[in-house]
Amino acid sequence: MSQHPDISVLTATCPSRTSLARIANKWTAMIVIVLGDRRRRFGDIRTAVDGISGKVLTDTLRDLERDGLVARHVYAEVPPRVEYELTPLGHTLHEPLRALGLWAEQHINAVLAAREEYDARR
Amino acid sequence: MSQHPDISVLTATCPSRTSLARIANKWTAMIVIVLGDRRRRFGDIRTAVDGISGKVLTDTLRDLERDGLVARHVYAEVPPRVEYELTPLGHTLHEPLRALGLWAEQHINAVLAAREEYDARR
Repeated sequence: MSQHPDISVLTATCPSRTSLARIANKWTAMIVIVLGDRRRRFGDIRTAVDGISGKVLTDTLRDLERDGLVARHVYAEVPPRVEYELTPLGHTLHEPLRALGLWAEQHINAVLAAREEYDARR
Repeated sequence: MSQHPDISVLTATCPSRTSLARIANKWTAMIVIVLGDRRRRFGDIRTAVDGISGKVLTDTLRDLERDGLVARHVYAEVPPRVEYELTPLGHTLHEPLRALGLWAEQHINAVLAAREEYDARR
């Protein structure tokens, strides 16, 4: 941490802010969740993350590869087979993002009830 | 969970997906982190979350209030004092989001090194 003695995501110019922006993202969360158990092909991820567009998946996988979270494996077959998997660094992120996904699933009824109440007051 | 027997953030039409989109967001993460220890006034949050615009903070606080994560307290003073605090539901989200912020801070050197290596290969 020698170059950045005051690391804080709350500081706009701290590089950790850009890293938080990447990981605190619904698409990142879902992709890391589905890659948690095994490596997968592009089409397999796209099927698992229902509703993601090809462009968003391509862009997000490239960003995750650039940040060292996902590794891309190209096999010299015809047609070429490409697979994606979490790196060891990416695996350290799996549990925190899985926790977010579980939170959203486990508390959805409370959130929906709060929305209903809020909207009724307006 | 009777209305939604197959809750999954991976399903595009599941309401938990919209909840994940709200919480898997850098501004949400930072606001929930700074509200973790105590209630704060708008200007206080804006100072703590360096670089956030007034509009983004207003919109995000309203969305968090609507989802039942943040409570807004208005005091009849001149000028009126408004404070925001996490609800009990919001507090259950503090730890998972704090974990994400810590991840970004603790792994920033590994992420920056990965980016450098990736860019050098291109």
